[in-house]
Amino acid sequence: MPDYPTIRLKPKAEARAIRHGFPWVFADEVVTDRRTRALTPGTFAVLEDAERRALGLVTVNPGSKIIGRMMDRNAATAIDQDWISARLRRALEHRTRLHDTPYYRLIHAEADGLPGVVIDRFGEAAVIQPNAAWAETHIALLADALQSVTGVTCIVKNGSGRARSLEGLGEDTSVLQGSLDGPVPVLMNGATYMADLLGGQKTGLFFDQRPNHAFAARLAHGARVLDVFSHVGGFSLAALAAGATHALAVDSSAPALELATRGAQASDVAARLETRQGDAFAVMEALHQENAQFDLVICDPPAFAPNKQALDAGLRAYERVAKLAAPLVAPGGYLGLCSCSHAADLGAFRNASARGIGRAGRKAQMIHTGFAGPDHPQLPQLAESGYLKAVFFRLNA
Amino acid sequence: MPDYPTIRLKPKAEARAIRHGFPWVFADEVVTDRRTRALTPGTFAVLEDAERRALGLVTVNPGSKIIGRMMDRNAATAIDQDWISARLRRALEHRTRLHDTPYYRLIHAEADGLPGVVIDRFGEAAVIQPNAAWAETHIALLADALQSVTGVTCIVKNGSGRARSLEGLGEDTSVLQGSLDGPVPVLMNGATYMADLLGGQKTGLFFDQRPNHAFAARLAHGARVLDVFSHVGGFSLAALAAGATHALAVDSSAPALELATRGAQASDVAARLETRQGDAFAVMEALHQENAQFDLVICDPPAFAPNKQALDAGLRAYERVAKLAAPLVAPGGYLGLCSCSHAADLGAFRNASARGIGRAGRKAQMIHTGFAGPDHPQLPQLAESGYLKAVFFRLNA
Repeated sequence: MPDYPTIRLKPKAEARAIRHGFPWVFADEVVTDRRTRALTPGTFAVLEDAERRALGLVTVNPGSKIIGRMMDRNAATAIDQDWISARLRRALEHRTRLHDTPYYRLIHAEADGLPGVVIDRFGEAAVIQPNAAWAETHIALLADALQSVTGVTCIVKNGSGRARSLEGLGEDTSVLQGSLDGPVPVLMNGATYMADLLGGQKTGLFFDQRPNHAFAARLAHGARVLDVFSHVGGFSLAALAAGATHALAVDSSAPALELATRGAQASDVAARLETRQGDAFAVMEALHQENAQFDLVICDPPAFAPNKQALDAGLRAYERVAKLAAPLVAPGGYLGLCSCSHAADLGAFRNASARGIGRAGRKAQMIHTGFAGPDHPQLPQLAESGYLKAVFFRLNA
Repeated sequence: MPDYPTIRLKPKAEARAIRHGFPWVFADEVVTDRRTRALTPGTFAVLEDAERRALGLVTVNPGSKIIGRMMDRNAATAIDQDWISARLRRALEHRTRLHDTPYYRLIHAEADGLPGVVIDRFGEAAVIQPNAAWAETHIALLADALQSVTGVTCIVKNGSGRARSLEGLGEDTSVLQGSLDGPVPVLMNGATYMADLLGGQKTGLFFDQRPNHAFAARLAHGARVLDVFSHVGGFSLAALAAGATHALAVDSSAPALELATRGAQASDVAARLETRQGDAFAVMEALHQENAQFDLVICDPPAFAPNKQALDAGLRAYERVAKLAAPLVAPGGYLGLCSCSHAADLGAFRNASARGIGRAGRKAQMIHTGFAGPDHPQLPQLAESGYLKAVFFRLNA
């Protein structure tokens, strides 16, 4: 058995939730003596309750509010390549059942048993986001296990984003194994997307929206489509592949729109895609001035309410998106509104959206609510981490 | 303009919600003088606010807690066949966009602009549920409009269920137009179901579960499937059509299981379907005694928490279902749990389910949450009426 240090819960700390599967230990719940504070971020340690009974093996980061993350209920486990590979194989089994082609989120952190680790797979390439200190220190082991379980030939480390800074980790994006020759084609929902695994947002493509893209595509045949906050064309390309007559993709990022255009070329729908670079709010107002009308309008903005402090302002922003988008929907047309805000729950987001539609003078039916796809599992104990919501409305004549 | 009577809101009643699209007027909100109490159930009347401003045309039922249901914001409208046909056409346009074959819920009551009216379409046949008094008195007009807009050759009136008794309407099921020659085949998710439009539950088939059947089918290839509370085989037949090796359908209703068997024959999967009649709880306990294991287990029980009074007992029943089902799931297999209880919201149902799985000693990932399909639209103002929830888990090894 490896010789692990120990951290201990305070007498009044809640060991019960942890015993029932809650995966995190907060800093104010443990006895943070000098020895604990001195542990190197990422160290594995045995977590004990106040009566010194072992609860499991955790990874410790004394610099994070989440001071401990449960690695294994067996406190005597060795975290080696075999251990990582077993979790990868279990995750891979689920994804291959769900998807005919190897494009998916392979590891979704805690829910897949690898705390703080996100891995997206793009065919022969994969991107690892090590968002917890242990994954940063064990990145070579993670990459080796990933290569051996999946056979991917290129592995990228994407070390960017807010989650890393909360763990005290810096920016660091690089190719760990193999090489990359420009953006990677990704097959989803009948379209081919282009993902920039090195320079793009997050891991280069938002796999989480796949079922919502698919739902929008069901509404798209023969439709004029407006895709606001389009990124690399997630909704546009799926809609065009499903027979939309025309799609206008709007984003503030020129590189994202360039990738949308390249994706449209690869999908053989480039003649039907138009892009417009600019501030989404300003572009929607301009389209309104132009009396533009679309049969399907989608708005997939960045997180306006990433935390509780930003909730009120965030909900106002979602309402404003709905209010600006609704007049652009043709009579009897559809409006899909998305939120990737942790702090805005489904009810609050839905109400803000409905309020905005109403303030635009339109009446609506709600026809669908969607979340992230099943390659983004959640722990029931962290069910609130279901950040992504997509609500689809049909507007009146 | 038709000569409508008037009903008036009390001075303190909330006209604002109604102006913003809330479709119902409760009995304690209106001035119920002798004249109002004497109105024939189903009468159309102009709803006025306390200052005698018209809010719209409502249908009145003095015997119901919902004394008024908004028919049209234009208080001078005539409710005739043209008016009904316009709403049917608008609803049909949405369904034909969504579905390649004519099997769907065509009218979902308030959200489709026909208060209290449910219409399900089964190819050349349709079933009307007139769950509000006006629909009962105008049933011939509804049937004529339905025939003319859709061209169906058989129309059934299904006058059963709790919603009707709340409106003071009796049981009355009959064929209004054309004739029926036994159960009707229904094509969904690659399977053929048999729907008994005269003797079955509700309108003979539960269209609302279609997207959840489809999700389960994605997990079913090569799987042994257990379908508890199977009704006519909703989940079983979709799973078998998707390549499940074997399915066991459990229900307390022999006629429902007989229809499941006939559906399996029509779907050419009868050799892989087994049925067991009995109490679902008892059968799950017996299967546990037999050490039976399945790769996919679905439980779709009746509403255990149909109202607030039944909520606590209902949630305990959902927890018990989860606790009995979890041990029957093979290592790494899937468990889908459904609730059609209005009173149990998604969070409460999800927590009860997770608790039951935990009490069975299993750990789980939550992989999917589904609702009723988009042929079951909702008014945003009645968003809580999203009664159907399906939560899918993957269980540990």
